[in-house]
Amino acid sequence: MKLQFSLKQTDEKTKARLGEITFNGKVYETPMFMPVGTNATVKTLSPEEIKMTGSGIILANTYHLWLKPGEDVVEEAGGLHKFMNYDGPILTDSGGYQVFSLAKPKDITEEGVKFKNQFNGDALFLTPEKSIAIQQALGSDIMMSFDECVKWPSTHEYMEKSVERTLRWAKRGKMVKKDNDQLLFGIVQGGEYPDLREKCAKELVKMDFDGFSIGGTSVGETKELMYKMVEYSIKYLPDDKLRYLMGVGDPIDLIENVRRGVDIFDCVSPTRLARHGHAYTWQGKINLKNKQYKKDFTPVDPTCKCYTCQNYTKAYIKHLINADETFGARLLSIHNIYFLHTLMKNIRDNIKKGKLDEYRDEFIKNYYKGEKNE
Amino acid sequence: MKLQFSLKQTDEKTKARLGEITFNGKVYETPMFMPVGTNATVKTLSPEEIKMTGSGIILANTYHLWLKPGEDVVEEAGGLHKFMNYDGPILTDSGGYQVFSLAKPKDITEEGVKFKNQFNGDALFLTPEKSIAIQQALGSDIMMSFDECVKWPSTHEYMEKSVERTLRWAKRGKMVKKDNDQLLFGIVQGGEYPDLREKCAKELVKMDFDGFSIGGTSVGETKELMYKMVEYSIKYLPDDKLRYLMGVGDPIDLIENVRRGVDIFDCVSPTRLARHGHAYTWQGKINLKNKQYKKDFTPVDPTCKCYTCQNYTKAYIKHLINADETFGARLLSIHNIYFLHTLMKNIRDNIKKGKLDEYRDEFIKNYYKGEKNE
Repeated sequence: MKLQFSLKQTDEKTKARLGEITFNGKVYETPMFMPVGTNATVKTLSPEEIKMTGSGIILANTYHLWLKPGEDVVEEAGGLHKFMNYDGPILTDSGGYQVFSLAKPKDITEEGVKFKNQFNGDALFLTPEKSIAIQQALGSDIMMSFDECVKWPSTHEYMEKSVERTLRWAKRGKMVKKDNDQLLFGIVQGGEYPDLREKCAKELVKMDFDGFSIGGTSVGETKELMYKMVEYSIKYLPDDKLRYLMGVGDPIDLIENVRRGVDIFDCVSPTRLARHGHAYTWQGKINLKNKQYKKDFTPVDPTCKCYTCQNYTKAYIKHLINADETFGARLLSIHNIYFLHTLMKNIRDNIKKGKLDEYRDEFIKNYYKGEKNE
Repeated sequence: MKLQFSLKQTDEKTKARLGEITFNGKVYETPMFMPVGTNATVKTLSPEEIKMTGSGIILANTYHLWLKPGEDVVEEAGGLHKFMNYDGPILTDSGGYQVFSLAKPKDITEEGVKFKNQFNGDALFLTPEKSIAIQQALGSDIMMSFDECVKWPSTHEYMEKSVERTLRWAKRGKMVKKDNDQLLFGIVQGGEYPDLREKCAKELVKMDFDGFSIGGTSVGETKELMYKMVEYSIKYLPDDKLRYLMGVGDPIDLIENVRRGVDIFDCVSPTRLARHGHAYTWQGKINLKNKQYKKDFTPVDPTCKCYTCQNYTKAYIKHLINADETFGARLLSIHNIYFLHTLMKNIRDNIKKGKLDEYRDEFIKNYYKGEKNE
């Protein structure tokens, strides 16, 4: 079963797009937020809960699964879907981001990246071919090309060399990819440099990938610069293929990048925030560790229809978080993921109505008013 | 809604009993195992999952809830049932066990026990009256009298003084109990001394408690001595009231103590074992951290009908435990609690058939054969 994407509508005022992903007999609408399931589990959630929150595609991390339990285990289990009991679409990253952010020291050569296993210190070597081989063993529905994740800021000189290598790596990965149902995306890099974003995007489009990711944003730059990087990249991408902005999940960034033509997003933030006692509300993020919630017997968000808000109070969740009870992180993960899916639904509804900008303004007015609670 | 108990049948060969607990329109059969929800949450489980495993009564810990979030929070929430979203019966302990085991140093007087808050060092004082007041604020369905949990072994001299004080404390607690729907149990102490167990049981029966607990077992003594302590205590207890053996959950201990006339049991073991990667099977306990399960794509127990065994493999759960993913502990908690409830159901079925001893022998044959896996 191959994942299919079809573009349904492009907003006249903005560049926002409405689309449909078809997979395994089900249809999922884009723009979409994708929760992250690093170790073949969306932290604290069951597959039933992942679906209950409204999730479609979820992520799994190639780097983590390569090291634990090993891609051979997942492959022999029958692939990620069977291994983790999730029959929705699964996207894997290339492992590149983790190699560059978690594994130190590292040695980057034309061939690939040498680094040490963070768990046992073993020497490891990740190459474009190896990344594809692992992702094929994992059996995800969307794979990523192996790329260099460059720190921000970097010089134009370094970034140019890096983009050229990323393009050669993308080609090598594509060469070894089996002719199977897995999609393979190219990743547009190039930092803040418009000419490099253009070059990278155009070359990847020539290579005819199944979809395109925009990388190297959300690594320290300002929101305004992130939006520019997306603009520099996206204008060279074809209309009929998915556009994926990697690692972005802040509500306002979701709205702003949908406005620039992005279809799918992932971020660890809803589950990570949950583990730290933070919850999204339509009046801004709140921190349930704050004393003010000790006897607050109202839901996290009074208008929210999620399992958590329908059944539990802030006071109870605060207690669970304070007592280090994992059910607290679970309840907030359910709420936070549901919140982002609801936001995406509101975004889609307002694209349909041609009122995305009005929705953005209203969202900002309510959401940032409450930021003082945090 | 007051919890009701009725005795249905007593086994002719053993002293095993079949009974029914009625609560909130539902009927629960005894003998019963009760999972522990220390902080108003059965660790890693939702209320729906607690029920899905077949649970009836669950425990909550007075000591923990007194310190966090404070019984006033639970009371203002509308009591434990509303606070934690569980509409089944809830039993609270007296706080005594934790004061004597967790809080050190302590100072025991006739009035009560002085000790330090383990979280912030504050001086605290727990008395029989205070224990009842906290349990009434929590709104549990079955409360325990405040007792001294004496270390094993202790001298007859010390134990005699302790039993006499425990009896005075039981009386003081009963004196201040409101005339509400909460049941109050007396706790039979007396260590390994038959005369003290007899004295304690008889005095408590005179005081006409709603049910009786057997305490001071499972604090280091051998299984044989534990069974004797139960025998020394239980023969003085009336037929028509519940008998609760505190802190006992090992499968063979459940069978052996049902044979001696115990109705209800609690223990942290199914959830604690789960967090450490251990699972009950009908062929003995297994440790999923063991290498042999790395590529074992079969369920934890091939005959088990629980959610975990129906949907997940040993290899996946092993991976989750190894990766410190809480979903692993959740899956094993579901399985382990379901296993103990299934064991209790088998016990009840075999009491009905008059074949409890045969069942015990068969269980032991299968269960201890597999202990080598651990």
